[in-house]
Amino acid sequence: MIDLPEKIKFAVNDISKLPGVGKKSALRQVMSILKWNSSSIENFSKSISNLRGIQYCKQCNLFCDDELCTVCANPLREDKILCVVESITDLMAIENSGNFHGKFFVLGGVLNPLAGIGPEEIFVDKLLHMIKEKEVKELILAINPSVEGDATCSFIKGQVSEDVRVERIGFGIPIGGSLEYLDPLTISKALENKRSF
Amino acid sequence: MIDLPEKIKFAVNDISKLPGVGKKSALRQVMSILKWNSSSIENFSKSISNLRGIQYCKQCNLFCDDELCTVCANPLREDKILCVVESITDLMAIENSGNFHGKFFVLGGVLNPLAGIGPEEIFVDKLLHMIKEKEVKELILAINPSVEGDATCSFIKGQVSEDVRVERIGFGIPIGGSLEYLDPLTISKALENKRSF
Repeated sequence: MIDLPEKIKFAVNDISKLPGVGKKSALRQVMSILKWNSSSIENFSKSISNLRGIQYCKQCNLFCDDELCTVCANPLREDKILCVVESITDLMAIENSGNFHGKFFVLGGVLNPLAGIGPEEIFVDKLLHMIKEKEVKELILAINPSVEGDATCSFIKGQVSEDVRVERIGFGIPIGGSLEYLDPLTISKALENKRSF
Repeated sequence: MIDLPEKIKFAVNDISKLPGVGKKSALRQVMSILKWNSSSIENFSKSISNLRGIQYCKQCNLFCDDELCTVCANPLREDKILCVVESITDLMAIENSGNFHGKFFVLGGVLNPLAGIGPEEIFVDKLLHMIKEKEVKELILAINPSVEGDATCSFIKGQVSEDVRVERIGFGIPIGGSLEYLDPLTISKALENKRSF
């Protein structure tokens, strides 16, 4: 085995921390970076370094360039409907569906006492403040189904005033999905959520 | 669609230049970097930036920490057998096989006049100098089979003195390969390279 130079080892090690990248692809990526010219490498390094300065919306925790994100700052979006998501990527998935016109709130995670994630870590106070300030009427909990997700939903529901309609996003068979390949829990949920046709 | 902040757009764009990374995985990777603490991000950025300072062996073009790479500097390796490869990754593949104990020379590419890659770009003079200086007796061209690779092999053979035995790495059925799934060219080569058994 060729002993890699220290600089390459460090880069391979760092790149392999990214999701979906193993040591082998990290090495392949480093080898490809080595072919770039010096200024391209420097630009790449800078754009990584700049990620430290990302700002988050003071209202909903989505990233943003100003104080408020583009969603919170958009007056055309319904203030009274608030969709609570675990992560920014979940928010983006909902946004890509093009069918939600309210505002969002990003928890940044779900309650997990064993991992030290309590109500403070998921900004429950900030959420309650937003619900009060914006006079939210409908709270959609778009939190993924899991033991922790379910507990988080129950906790939030317990904290919210009774005037707010709290709903959880629907569970069932995904479009294009096939009953044959779906897990029993999804099928049970889908049966539970049956609607008149 | 959520409009990503400029900083994230730049990072996604840069990461998606890496081989095997599309825009979607690049975004996923950026989202994961955003969860790191500031010093981890800075370290990552630095290890990328440091790649600019990688040194290459003055003899064989492999990367190295000193003037000579670990292979060239190793007195236990046979000086008289030289294996010519296109790239450092090819060199590492041969090295991993554990069955080659000579020295290497990395061309960094193959002749491709249309892309402006001539004998100078693939260090042919440096290779000839190494062959002469080390009194190489056996030159193994471990260059991948392609029109350009074949032309490069012919060119190098034409430049090398007749005292040097020039060989090309064997082509045929890979171990574990199945005739059923191999392309006709590989099968033709394998038939051509048949050996008494």
